[in-house]
Amino acid sequence: MSAATRMSLNVYTVREQWNLREAIEGCARHGVPAIAPWRDKLADIGVEEAARLIADNGLAVSSLCRGGMFPAADAAGRQAAIDDNRRALDDAAALGAACLVLVVGGLPDGSKDLPDARRQVEDGIAASLEHAREVGVPLAIEPLHPMYAADRACVNTLAQALDICDVLGDGVGVIVDVYHVWWDPELEAQIARAGERILGFHVCDWLVPTTDLLLDRGMMGDGVIDLPQIRRWVEAAGFEGYAEVEIMSAQNWWKRDPDDVVRICLERMQTVV
Amino acid sequence: MSAATRMSLNVYTVREQWNLREAIEGCARHGVPAIAPWRDKLADIGVEEAARLIADNGLAVSSLCRGGMFPAADAAGRQAAIDDNRRALDDAAALGAACLVLVVGGLPDGSKDLPDARRQVEDGIAASLEHAREVGVPLAIEPLHPMYAADRACVNTLAQALDICDVLGDGVGVIVDVYHVWWDPELEAQIARAGERILGFHVCDWLVPTTDLLLDRGMMGDGVIDLPQIRRWVEAAGFEGYAEVEIMSAQNWWKRDPDDVVRICLERMQTVV
Repeated sequence: MSAATRMSLNVYTVREQWNLREAIEGCARHGVPAIAPWRDKLADIGVEEAARLIADNGLAVSSLCRGGMFPAADAAGRQAAIDDNRRALDDAAALGAACLVLVVGGLPDGSKDLPDARRQVEDGIAASLEHAREVGVPLAIEPLHPMYAADRACVNTLAQALDICDVLGDGVGVIVDVYHVWWDPELEAQIARAGERILGFHVCDWLVPTTDLLLDRGMMGDGVIDLPQIRRWVEAAGFEGYAEVEIMSAQNWWKRDPDDVVRICLERMQTVV
Repeated sequence: MSAATRMSLNVYTVREQWNLREAIEGCARHGVPAIAPWRDKLADIGVEEAARLIADNGLAVSSLCRGGMFPAADAAGRQAAIDDNRRALDDAAALGAACLVLVVGGLPDGSKDLPDARRQVEDGIAASLEHAREVGVPLAIEPLHPMYAADRACVNTLAQALDICDVLGDGVGVIVDVYHVWWDPELEAQIARAGERILGFHVCDWLVPTTDLLLDRGMMGDGVIDLPQIRRWVEAAGFEGYAEVEIMSAQNWWKRDPDDVVRICLERMQTVV
């Protein structure tokens, strides 16, 4: 595949520059065949209008970001999360999204009990699974880098995510986001283990130095991740979907002309991914 | 043991306030029975004077920080690292340190080959081991948090570190630093596996939010790490050494009165570790 035919634009790559309508039109203008909306962006124009615009512009939807955030300090909080994931699944179905990305959540307020948070995540996914199957949108567990274990996601390796998949069966898989997993000594083995359960492949790069834990992701090629190696492993496991470009970069890419950003993404997809 | 009898002060906890002489005298004044110098601090007064001051004040040396940094872009660089570790071992022996902490190093300049960097680490430790055995100072591999995989240490889990120990045999073990390993879903099992190969136990805390990747460590009790749980695992594995307090905190603890810092460390050792 050419770079243009396998790239999806995660809208957070141009979060500060474009609303969802502009991002959809931008993808169409640049020949990017797929898009990944975030729910806050979806809220700008509503899911029906978004679905119409995406369809009118001939785009695929590689994922909807994001569900998850399951752990909570009490049962009401946990139920609220499950209800919210149900709504996210409905939105994902309306958009024809290939999956709902789960950023599973970290420690509940005041808790230091990581094993308990991990159990709550598994319970929350289990409680969301029937609806996921009904609407035909798989849940995609995204293991997040261990530096987010406390506050964003207590599932931090592909091995953990796949252990949950093993228990829960059909309708749940994983996202391989290079930013989160590139360091993992088990990466090759766990990607092979994942096989057809790989529901998404997200790319950006790890910068040296990294100046912010959340918003200093790099453009593909500007960091140290061996992107072609990981892409080959993912493809060898059978993944044939889009490479979703997700670069959260408050001080650099979010300040640039968004058309330039998309052009450079496409160029780097060709040269370094 | 009481908090006072099991605490060691890693001098980087008061890096900006005290030179090594002041840190040694501070430990003696507060009844802290052990200290862990860094080599840059050692250079201030020389190893012989440091050894004399430490002995005169009746302190144990829980570790010398640090050796390691083995990967390099060429053979000359790798040999220079091995030579430097040899000198570090000599200093550790002169101080009577319980171990030499290894921050093993990350990717060589320009490299994206993490498996190769990991092989270079194993080779570098292997090449340093004979001298470690001769001088009677064990090498302590410190797995560093995955957020340092690129630039500080490509050994990022206890499992990896112990795999290296399994290959190399006597004279090499591991440091369990809660900051680096608290998130690891295999932590309990790998601590048990480590057993008597645990050469050091380092404590601080993971703050939420963490505002800097390197210099925003928290005081024990101010973050989310379940310190008593990890301490119990380490003790159950047979570790009877000091709990070494290592808090790198540019915006908070490095700006406080160092006597207050040590007093608070001792208090928290009693209440939350």
